[in-house]
Amino acid sequence: MKPASLKVLGICGSLRAASLNRAAMQLAGQVMPQGMTLQSLEWADVPPFNADVLAAGLPAAVQAARDKVRQADAVLIATPEYNFSVPGMLKNLLDWLSRGDDQPFNGKPVAILSAAAGPLGGARVQYDLRRIMLFVNAEVLVKPEVFIGHAQTKFSSSGECTDEPTRAFVTSQMQSFAAFVQTRRRLQGA
Amino acid sequence: MKPASLKVLGICGSLRAASLNRAAMQLAGQVMPQGMTLQSLEWADVPPFNADVLAAGLPAAVQAARDKVRQADAVLIATPEYNFSVPGMLKNLLDWLSRGDDQPFNGKPVAILSAAAGPLGGARVQYDLRRIMLFVNAEVLVKPEVFIGHAQTKFSSSGECTDEPTRAFVTSQMQSFAAFVQTRRRLQGA
Amino acid sequence: MKPASLKVLGICGSLRAASLNRAAMQLAGQVMPQGMTLQSLEWADVPPFNADVLAAGLPAAVQAARDKVRQADAVLIATPEYNFSVPGMLKNLLDWLSRGDDQPFNGKPVAILSAAAGPLGGARVQYDLRRIMLFVNAEVLVKPEVFIGHAQTKFSSSGECTDEPTRAFVTSQMQSFAAFVQTRRRLQGA
Amino acid sequence: MKPASLKVLGICGSLRAASLNRAAMQLAGQVMPQGMTLQSLEWADVPPFNADVLAAGLPAAVQAARDKVRQADAVLIATPEYNFSVPGMLKNLLDWLSRGDDQPFNGKPVAILSAAAGPLGGARVQYDLRRIMLFVNAEVLVKPEVFIGHAQTKFSSSGECTDEPTRAFVTSQMQSFAAFVQTRRRLQGA
Repeated sequence: MKPASLKVLGICGSLRAASLNRAAMQLAGQVMPQGMTLQSLEWADVPPFNADVLAAGLPAAVQAARDKVRQADAVLIATPEYNFSVPGMLKNLLDWLSRGDDQPFNGKPVAILSAAAGPLGGARVQYDLRRIMLFVNAEVLVKPEVFIGHAQTKFSSSGECTDEPTRAFVTSQMQSFAAFVQTRRRLQGA
Repeated sequence: MKPASLKVLGICGSLRAASLNRAAMQLAGQVMPQGMTLQSLEWADVPPFNADVLAAGLPAAVQAARDKVRQADAVLIATPEYNFSVPGMLKNLLDWLSRGDDQPFNGKPVAILSAAAGPLGGARVQYDLRRIMLFVNAEVLVKPEVFIGHAQTKFSSSGECTDEPTRAFVTSQMQSFAAFVQTRRRLQGA
Repeated sequence: MKPASLKVLGICGSLRAASLNRAAMQLAGQVMPQGMTLQSLEWADVPPFNADVLAAGLPAAVQAARDKVRQADAVLIATPEYNFSVPGMLKNLLDWLSRGDDQPFNGKPVAILSAAAGPLGGARVQYDLRRIMLFVNAEVLVKPEVFIGHAQTKFSSSGECTDEPTRAFVTSQMQSFAAFVQTRRRLQGA
Repeated sequence: MKPASLKVLGICGSLRAASLNRAAMQLAGQVMPQGMTLQSLEWADVPPFNADVLAAGLPAAVQAARDKVRQADAVLIATPEYNFSVPGMLKNLLDWLSRGDDQPFNGKPVAILSAAAGPLGGARVQYDLRRIMLFVNAEVLVKPEVFIGHAQTKFSSSGECTDEPTRAFVTSQMQSFAAFVQTRRRLQGA
């Protein structure tokens, strides 16, 4: 199997257009090993989760997001930290994706990174997100962890990374992630 | 000061009409000490948090929710657990409420309870919620904790509590909460 | 490869002789699939962790425990919850085991269960333990989770399990664990 | 009441002689508001917690530590992070202190700071410690949080703080802590 076949779905935890986490996610896409490619999930139209709505059937935007996750070889989540935890709307997306016996994260390789304006770079959000990923039985890359602190000083106004250590950390994570994904594929008899 | 003056704002973490947590919240309202009263916050129209939207000004539904929290003497949160953590839409509400120097949870007494179909009754969601409440500097009642497991067996289809131990636990929590709120009011020189 | 070759090292998080978690661990040993066997780690003589002591070399009891973990095909941790988290002495053992580039949990399959007198059965301790296991890069079984609540009613005074649902849950976990360990061995080219 | 009467008991989470957290704790003692004073708890001789030992009576070292906590007006915990959580031996100390109806943390004001060699400065340990403090019903200062990252670059080999921002952060925390403790004393009718 060539690494060229690895399609990664990127989920940015912020809905803001100029999101630092979107910039960090795009950096990850740029530094992925040859053949690994990133596509961004656009999920702004996923509605509020409500069990009454679910009972009437999955909304189209949710079904589309589920299909994207299912078709991907792996998922990269780049997220800010809001109030010491996961952004509500990112969690709402995950709440929809997690439903049903055929929920698409089952066995899916996942990597997590976070960028934040503060010095900790999202140290609190990542462990909540890892616990949530337990529930959906995803396979989350353990190391290296990537926390991008003071993120507003590490990306230009157009979203380009201007900080070499950050580029190196993300490159290292993507290399480990590629190996991790390929090992899981081999494990699953792919 | 008479306890009669304590107005508690109830926030149900589920948007479902027949929510078990709404039933649990209403039970709390029924068993509050004399004079403590519960009003429910209706927050279904709070939009997705987006910093770009915030930059244009607080949406009216958010402003209304902030005013309700600010005017309340205390807040009771009754929430399910989704995927081992806080429901996304409840977190989204908190993400909006938390913004700005004048965020309304500052110093506000808060109590938490959770109801769930499983045996643990929401044991995971409450600690994430407590950490989130740290960020907004709320004063959260420590004990007694209330976890209502197998909740579907403890409320009738019309939402009435049919389980005496559950009623007793919630009564005990509301008595402690009333004392806690009054102590905080005294502390703040009210 | 036959399952007969799977040696599991059991670590009981309590030092008490009549520990409910020791009983639960022994139950796991009894219900393991054919060929999977359990040996208990005796770790009461591991000293307090102190970096000054470490600088002088690993104590013999620590070295012995590290060798046991390294030689095992997998590790089962059965632990009580103390004060909403991991028992201090169990954490002290893990603090010693985690040190150095050759720390023995690296890539090791681990399963966790907890027994407690309260209704939640250790719901809080397991997630802290999972985060700790991240640090040492262990591979922790996700599901099924096993929380044994009201544990004092489910084991006889001699430590025999008297509760069929508990026996069934632990049996199910051990079956999943055996499959998990064998998959990891295959993955690692064993 | 004059602030001069505030006696703070300091608990360092590391047993290492040249601990960075001991240095950080001593810095806190130096920058406390006038009249607030720090005494360090020496707890190295507290034995491993074991319910069988407890059944025979509290060991003398545990009883002495309990008395120190009870007599203090407040407690400051300065702790490293081991394996993404609380150092085992610090947790063991807390496991002993937490036992019994007369456990000494009940209602006690507590402040937490952490120092670590890594960039996050202990961001993971503090939230576990806050949850543990819930169990014992302590009153933990919320803000400002103090995380001292890259701590080995901020203290001299003799333990003196050489970093002005660190000194300013700790000074600010101790000022908030003094106000917090005095408010609690007033609240409790002292």
